[in-house]
Amino acid sequence: MPRHEIYQRFDALKQQAKIGLYAPANTQMIDNIYSACLSTLGVLSRENLRSSVQNKRYFVFTDGTKFSRAINADLYNPDYSNWLQLQDAMKTNTIESIDVDALSRILYTMAISFCACIDLINKADRQTPGSFFGYFVAYFFAWRVGVEPQTSIQILSMDDEHTRLPTDYIFNLGPKQRKFHVPVKLSTRERAIMLWAHQKLLDGVYGIDRFMGTPVLLTETKTDIPKKEVSEICLPDQWKLYQLYVAKLKRIYYLDIPAPYEKLNQDFPPLIVKPFSDFFQEWSTLTPS
Amino acid sequence: MPRHEIYQRFDALKQQAKIGLYAPANTQMIDNIYSACLSTLGVLSRENLRSSVQNKRYFVFTDGTKFSRAINADLYNPDYSNWLQLQDAMKTNTIESIDVDALSRILYTMAISFCACIDLINKADRQTPGSFFGYFVAYFFAWRVGVEPQTSIQILSMDDEHTRLPTDYIFNLGPKQRKFHVPVKLSTRERAIMLWAHQKLLDGVYGIDRFMGTPVLLTETKTDIPKKEVSEICLPDQWKLYQLYVAKLKRIYYLDIPAPYEKLNQDFPPLIVKPFSDFFQEWSTLTPS
Repeated sequence: MPRHEIYQRFDALKQQAKIGLYAPANTQMIDNIYSACLSTLGVLSRENLRSSVQNKRYFVFTDGTKFSRAINADLYNPDYSNWLQLQDAMKTNTIESIDVDALSRILYTMAISFCACIDLINKADRQTPGSFFGYFVAYFFAWRVGVEPQTSIQILSMDDEHTRLPTDYIFNLGPKQRKFHVPVKLSTRERAIMLWAHQKLLDGVYGIDRFMGTPVLLTETKTDIPKKEVSEICLPDQWKLYQLYVAKLKRIYYLDIPAPYEKLNQDFPPLIVKPFSDFFQEWSTLTPS
Repeated sequence: MPRHEIYQRFDALKQQAKIGLYAPANTQMIDNIYSACLSTLGVLSRENLRSSVQNKRYFVFTDGTKFSRAINADLYNPDYSNWLQLQDAMKTNTIESIDVDALSRILYTMAISFCACIDLINKADRQTPGSFFGYFVAYFFAWRVGVEPQTSIQILSMDDEHTRLPTDYIFNLGPKQRKFHVPVKLSTRERAIMLWAHQKLLDGVYGIDRFMGTPVLLTETKTDIPKKEVSEICLPDQWKLYQLYVAKLKRIYYLDIPAPYEKLNQDFPPLIVKPFSDFFQEWSTLTPS
């Protein structure tokens, strides 16, 4: 059986990503993938889920036997022309002209469409959606800040015991300029402490306030297909303790932001959780402390 | 279809664990489970795996269509009388009379037998083996140190914002006595930093040297059934950085110890990785700093 078209196009992006994520070629690769996803999903039916998430409606795509993960009905808008509009805005550097809610819908639709397709093509493949989401976020982030990310850093060598540490995406804008530490995950669930732990490690190696931790996450939904139910797994009280006792994160961005985390914005300790679309407006005003 | 006998016996242990892990009743529950596992596995065939792990041989149990996870052939010794001998030694408090290598084999065989059974009964169930292993380790740990574990701690309240933090197993031997912080996991893979992060959180809340971090892990093997191969996923260089920059762990115990981690015992920074059986000999000599 030939590898499914969407996998073939993903393979091409994966190859390109080895060369660089901040390149016009990536726009074409991501466009190819998104077009194929829209065609694949466009012919499928939708089935609404019972949602235990307040004020959010979710559905799944199905071919009759297989089902995708949950998709936020209010954020999902598979209008290809919106992505063309975003491409134009990126070319002319006028992304601020796009309403942030509209931008949220474009980014969410593109990311979740790929995940939904893989769910339907090969449910057992838990790795590819996460890899795609990493390239996807790094592509937009790299475009916005104008530098290639790196995925390892030099470690101070004393007895030659270490040389480099593999990291999440690091965007270094240059000497005395902003440096972003950007873990990218589909969800965190009970593993969220890893975001703070990696920040703590960078703080330890390079000093506090050197890197701004700004993770980007897709969603915290959990889909129960047999029960046709969707829920959100959120542990806001634990997040507060991580922010107090492990390390400080500057922002946590979501494509489908969970309300219990958004509420942390008004709470102590300071912990700002926002839609990823906000990053494109505020990135140049963020400071480490 | 009635729930499989092994699941029924596991359910009983789960209920008992709610009452307490440090109780003679748990010996009977664990004995019931182990007997059922030995009967189930005793009639299955074994198939050797190609091992990319130096000096370790692995096999899988199979019923012809389904396969268990990899089992270390040199540690696996399904001799029920060994467990009876261990029970006697526990009752008479003479566990030091059992050779540590023999103890390693008993503990490994009991733990991996349950995991292998669940693999064969319901491969999709990724949760039950981990839950069992938690109760299993906590039972032996509790017996050895003589106190019940707790799984949450009080947090200092300033504006009433937090009260309790859910934790891994905490064994508090009393004022000015040893306190152990014991995460229990089947494997850590790329999530190992969580062990140090939880230690860092406890250090932050209760002070450095209050809790000794002594995680207990089963193995780091990864089984590729289609290829009939087993490998070990180890990242010793990253572990060194966690020990230097995130928090200090006192010990890391394994039931099937990976050689790359055992080698850390001779390296800088101090990071002692040992077979879990050693804990029963050395526990009363361990000190926080």
